[in-house]
Amino acid sequence: MTFWSPAVPTSTPTSTWLDLPEDTGFGPDNLPYGVFTTSDRPEQRRIGVAIGDQVLDAGAAARATGVPSALLDAPSLNPLLAAGRETWTAVRAQLRSWLGDPAHRAAVEPCLLSRAEVRLHLPFTVGDYVDFYASEHHAANLGRLFRPGSDPLTPNWKHLPIGYHGRSGTVVVSGTPIVRPQGQRKAPTDAVPSFGPTQRLDIEAEVGFVVGAPSELGTPVPLADFREHVFGVCLVNDWSARDIQAWEYVPLGPFLGKSFATSVSPWVVPLDALEHARVSPPPRDVEPLPYLDDRAGEPWGLDLALEVRLNGEPISHPPFAAMYWTAAQQLAHMTANGASVRPGDLFASGTVSGPDHGTEGALIELTWNGARPVKLPDGSSRSFLDDGDEVTITATAPGPHGTRIAFGEVTGRVVAGG
Amino acid sequence: MTFWSPAVPTSTPTSTWLDLPEDTGFGPDNLPYGVFTTSDRPEQRRIGVAIGDQVLDAGAAARATGVPSALLDAPSLNPLLAAGRETWTAVRAQLRSWLGDPAHRAAVEPCLLSRAEVRLHLPFTVGDYVDFYASEHHAANLGRLFRPGSDPLTPNWKHLPIGYHGRSGTVVVSGTPIVRPQGQRKAPTDAVPSFGPTQRLDIEAEVGFVVGAPSELGTPVPLADFREHVFGVCLVNDWSARDIQAWEYVPLGPFLGKSFATSVSPWVVPLDALEHARVSPPPRDVEPLPYLDDRAGEPWGLDLALEVRLNGEPISHPPFAAMYWTAAQQLAHMTANGASVRPGDLFASGTVSGPDHGTEGALIELTWNGARPVKLPDGSSRSFLDDGDEVTITATAPGPHGTRIAFGEVTGRVVAGG
Repeated sequence: MTFWSPAVPTSTPTSTWLDLPEDTGFGPDNLPYGVFTTSDRPEQRRIGVAIGDQVLDAGAAARATGVPSALLDAPSLNPLLAAGRETWTAVRAQLRSWLGDPAHRAAVEPCLLSRAEVRLHLPFTVGDYVDFYASEHHAANLGRLFRPGSDPLTPNWKHLPIGYHGRSGTVVVSGTPIVRPQGQRKAPTDAVPSFGPTQRLDIEAEVGFVVGAPSELGTPVPLADFREHVFGVCLVNDWSARDIQAWEYVPLGPFLGKSFATSVSPWVVPLDALEHARVSPPPRDVEPLPYLDDRAGEPWGLDLALEVRLNGEPISHPPFAAMYWTAAQQLAHMTANGASVRPGDLFASGTVSGPDHGTEGALIELTWNGARPVKLPDGSSRSFLDDGDEVTITATAPGPHGTRIAFGEVTGRVVAGG
Repeated sequence: MTFWSPAVPTSTPTSTWLDLPEDTGFGPDNLPYGVFTTSDRPEQRRIGVAIGDQVLDAGAAARATGVPSALLDAPSLNPLLAAGRETWTAVRAQLRSWLGDPAHRAAVEPCLLSRAEVRLHLPFTVGDYVDFYASEHHAANLGRLFRPGSDPLTPNWKHLPIGYHGRSGTVVVSGTPIVRPQGQRKAPTDAVPSFGPTQRLDIEAEVGFVVGAPSELGTPVPLADFREHVFGVCLVNDWSARDIQAWEYVPLGPFLGKSFATSVSPWVVPLDALEHARVSPPPRDVEPLPYLDDRAGEPWGLDLALEVRLNGEPISHPPFAAMYWTAAQQLAHMTANGASVRPGDLFASGTVSGPDHGTEGALIELTWNGARPVKLPDGSSRSFLDDGDEVTITATAPGPHGTRIAFGEVTGRVVAGG
């Protein structure tokens, strides 16, 4: 499948012959992958790599430089995902060589397009989608709101990263309109449920991890193998209908309150681009069982700074470094029972909420279930989302040499149902 | 994609030129679809149709009779699933013509193989897997066991078909060994959880519905369109680790207690083969909301008689006709929020348990959490499954003219973990 020469340099040049915008988060140390089409060839999905305000047609660059590869000449990232860590490293080195070595400029420059000109698509076919619940602040806030009078955290919360399977078929790319879902709602004061459009449409700002190399059924993936299986990272908005969710979720968990749409950013940032973002996770109050004990190994906390904007106005700044459980622990837990992973599996962190007001990743927390509505510059306020509202989540992470690694934004506008 | 002639007869001959075993459940009124390989061509997956003790190589029959079709010359059922109701009807009529009309015998007979000689595979690529909870007897039994002191049914149970997403990547074909999963367990008397092999490995005998034609994101599938989207029916064993499940499932539902493996029967019985099995569902105690109200339309209760065998010994006979919620209601509910369905989506009924002892679809109910172990002919008894135990689920349904429609069995043997 791959034709990458082992002679391709694997050093880390941060230089490039491109004239990049100052302070771009899409410099040569980022190089996130996506899938795009152009208006003249709308049926032909192609793999692209973001650089500055441009996108490199990766398959075209491979052909132009005489290293054609089926992995880059593909309509989705799945073949590249399946190829594994060694190939990912080699492909990334090749991209840096193309964009860094002036000798490649003549061949590669014609393969660059303006990002404003391309249409971005879901970059990979999603296998299983799992949503975790890894922010202590979020879980405690929701416990207080959904189960008043009980302990905010359930007894299992600090022993295992709680998660559940979501609907992979309704994972959509950033920009897809979000149709306000209908469903059953029943307020505590109602005698019986009614059916209609959700009146509590919310967001959940999350970070998603994209699985590359598969694992075998029956064989857990240990903490130390995280890097072998996870290809990259994206942003996720796990849209949530709180009224539908509250009525349905006991005893088998969230279902229709979540399954109508989950938006992901169009660019998958390679795990290798986040080396400088790695931090130790917060101290754990409870001794982890050995399969979850990351204290002796590599830390997989990530210092991503998220921003949530509502109709353009920043309303929250959730700090990913505050998450109690890391993605490495989530992968180890998810496979501890022998469940296998596949290329294209997506697992998300759960809502990223920090300890302070203004760092919550969901409106239900930020507005405390409507008790303190968000004020917008136009004078209006929101407890939950109105039709026409647009929510955008962005993030940056530290890169090498004081640079920043940007994530593609995940955005969506709410439209009324039919 | 399809080359089926509209001139193919669509009548319902039950005659065939094959010499079938007496009382076969795989007569010409059944014709379930599967995917097989033979030992001489182990890499070439082919679509097969079960007839008597044989399997028809459907792609070979199409070529031999001069009606080649990419839908039957495929390594999985997914292209056929996606083709929609009209094509399903035409293909089924073609199969009946091949197997019923002696004029086709010379061409078609060489395309028959002994079922004992072929290896059966997962017949379709699973999109999303959803597991419902539609037996009132099962839900009430589990409520009594998991939440003693509370109402057996949660307040929402009779208002909506409760369900959750399971792991599609670990859906396996009948015969796949089931590795005993490890995980966190914590008995109420334990101070902290421990990690190790489940000590309460259980089964759930279920009926699965295979989605064919897709629906659009944002557009619910009404009850009346069930037949347009659901291609066929299989049997499901939703293996469950009760100790892992009990510790993890609050508040987001079952996860690792279920995700290690879900077995399905290799043959998908077309919905059209179950016309004579259709019955009215049980009376509902609670007025259904309009989108779930099936009282004026076609009833989609199905009179399937299940049998569960443990190491060859029949231990239970769950009656599918007793299910409170039908598959049509489940599909309408699952899409009521605008969630789309795709070809290959699988949704299962939830454990089929009847009202009487000896009709429970799970050991936890049959043995009442170990209080009344199942006695086996070898003198041993079981509360939950031992390593080496083999569980087989079969089912039959009424066919036309007093015949029976058989389902392929779903079987699996428990093996110790590594």
